[in-house]
Amino acid sequence: MKRTMLYGPRDVRFEEHPDPTIVEPTDAIIRMVATCVCGSDLWPYRGVDVADQPIPMGHEYCGIVEEVGRDVKNVRPGQFVVGSFFASDNTCPICQDGYQSRCVDARPIGVEGAQAPYLRVPLADGTLVATREVPSDDLIPSLLATSDVLGTGWFAADAANIKPGKTVAVVGDGAVGLLGVLSAKHMGAERIIMMSRHEDRQRLALAFGATDIVTERGDEGVARIKDMTDGLGAHSVIEAVGTQESMMQAIRSTRPGGHVGYVGVSHDVALPGLELFFSGVHLHGGPAPVRRYLPNLINLVLGGKINPGLVFDQTLPLEQVAEGYQAMDERRAIKTLLRP
Amino acid sequence: MKRTMLYGPRDVRFEEHPDPTIVEPTDAIIRMVATCVCGSDLWPYRGVDVADQPIPMGHEYCGIVEEVGRDVKNVRPGQFVVGSFFASDNTCPICQDGYQSRCVDARPIGVEGAQAPYLRVPLADGTLVATREVPSDDLIPSLLATSDVLGTGWFAADAANIKPGKTVAVVGDGAVGLLGVLSAKHMGAERIIMMSRHEDRQRLALAFGATDIVTERGDEGVARIKDMTDGLGAHSVIEAVGTQESMMQAIRSTRPGGHVGYVGVSHDVALPGLELFFSGVHLHGGPAPVRRYLPNLINLVLGGKINPGLVFDQTLPLEQVAEGYQAMDERRAIKTLLRP
Repeated sequence: MKRTMLYGPRDVRFEEHPDPTIVEPTDAIIRMVATCVCGSDLWPYRGVDVADQPIPMGHEYCGIVEEVGRDVKNVRPGQFVVGSFFASDNTCPICQDGYQSRCVDARPIGVEGAQAPYLRVPLADGTLVATREVPSDDLIPSLLATSDVLGTGWFAADAANIKPGKTVAVVGDGAVGLLGVLSAKHMGAERIIMMSRHEDRQRLALAFGATDIVTERGDEGVARIKDMTDGLGAHSVIEAVGTQESMMQAIRSTRPGGHVGYVGVSHDVALPGLELFFSGVHLHGGPAPVRRYLPNLINLVLGGKINPGLVFDQTLPLEQVAEGYQAMDERRAIKTLLRP
Repeated sequence: MKRTMLYGPRDVRFEEHPDPTIVEPTDAIIRMVATCVCGSDLWPYRGVDVADQPIPMGHEYCGIVEEVGRDVKNVRPGQFVVGSFFASDNTCPICQDGYQSRCVDARPIGVEGAQAPYLRVPLADGTLVATREVPSDDLIPSLLATSDVLGTGWFAADAANIKPGKTVAVVGDGAVGLLGVLSAKHMGAERIIMMSRHEDRQRLALAFGATDIVTERGDEGVARIKDMTDGLGAHSVIEAVGTQESMMQAIRSTRPGGHVGYVGVSHDVALPGLELFFSGVHLHGGPAPVRRYLPNLINLVLGGKINPGLVFDQTLPLEQVAEGYQAMDERRAIKTLLRP
């Protein structure tokens, strides 16, 4: 098969690689139905977090089980499955507490490289969630979204403690922030303020349930949020960027006692202790434990309750993966779905 | 009257000052029954956060209401009262959410200076909690403790989400950390690990309910906590120091998905974003909203359920306040109670 490798800044290649095989008896091999490019893939693509040797890319996936190791009991060949970007045993104390992305035996799927027609998934029993039937093709984008981008936006909303009737602000209008809006809406938020200056993203945010758009950023953005909330700040703020500016914008937009859910992978962030202390906010985030939410999110998609697949505004054949990266890098696409 | 002023590093004076009077109709004047020296008073005493002019000192207090302004309805002269170190209206949305120390009209009591025989308390209706009767003298230390040091330790334990059966670690063996132990015990923690290398504090920690003592600090302390928790870290960690080392010790001692409750006033702390992100912990803290807990804590003291007053191992006449500071600075006393 061919798979996606990053050789250096903006150098994505789709190149020959042996088909994956069962290595451990707990592995499964899946045939990819759809994969995609993640906002976090753009960090190394742009030369941040750059590796000194070519690395396989991709960690979002859904597909058909092709083969399983001899210890796998929960999934079988022929089933349609979705998994998280971290493989997890789903039995250790950390998994039992709902933090599967920090499983004591967590394995990043990125190492295997999901932007490929076949993928080895370690710890298949703990990682994969199968649907009862192979779903219809129109549901594939939304099911793929549960694998990371929706699961991450949902976790951010959950970490931000979104409750019915509350006011939410969302910092970051990428795919995760947009699905944070969808999640906030589903959790019953009354007012959902999307901070965005891009019209295409604003439109999608409104479609997902945003009630207000704020185009200002940084301190001006914070001042706008305060203006809109009697000077108090939002109850809940979703942070989905990962820079110093976005983190401080999120913390400062939150009222004392409120909650910041942050899922942007932090880059050169240092939170000033004294300001954080007097902010009085709750801070929670990190790599989303998508596996905790997967069964529920898959059910919501299959039941037609949510349509997170709208976040994909570009679909390409997998072999054109390099164009997908370029389109997202240049903000021509919000998120690119890839079909083998 | 005389009151306590800090003129500069280690220069505490007890000097003449006009008696406080009703300034606003929502004020009360209280005659001090007991006050004390706070660990946070030691920062300016030691020359950190030093002011360029003399400042009044003290923010922990309990006493008898002497006089009230014309708008005060909830307390009356002759009542015994305890209040928080922030005056608050207890009616604004932030107070209603339980964050009275960040009330939209919050006023620091420190500005008035509670290490004095009389104290003006602004926003008396929202700030003060009266007991039904004037309590017996033996209960005074514990009632005074509710005003800050217990309220703060309790908030730290609450912010650290302590639940029955869980494992808690406490970073900081000062009075707040010690009362964090008492709070954790009361909240049902199964294992309470006090990190301390001082014998007198270890003894008190054990008396308050600590089950284990760890004398190592920093990375070695973290390694010990991990050893004691199957490599996972504690479910809940109380941070009661406020330095970079103590914050990182707390975060690193917490398992993914666990909770850090931090109440040490941050000094030169900058939290590294990427490490915080991958830690997966919940972080909450700040100036404790003591008013939220006061009615319950006062009842627990009056009912003989808790004895936080044990934290005072030195009692001095108020006019010897300078010796109280010195004893705490030199670690000859854990906490000094002052009687006018």
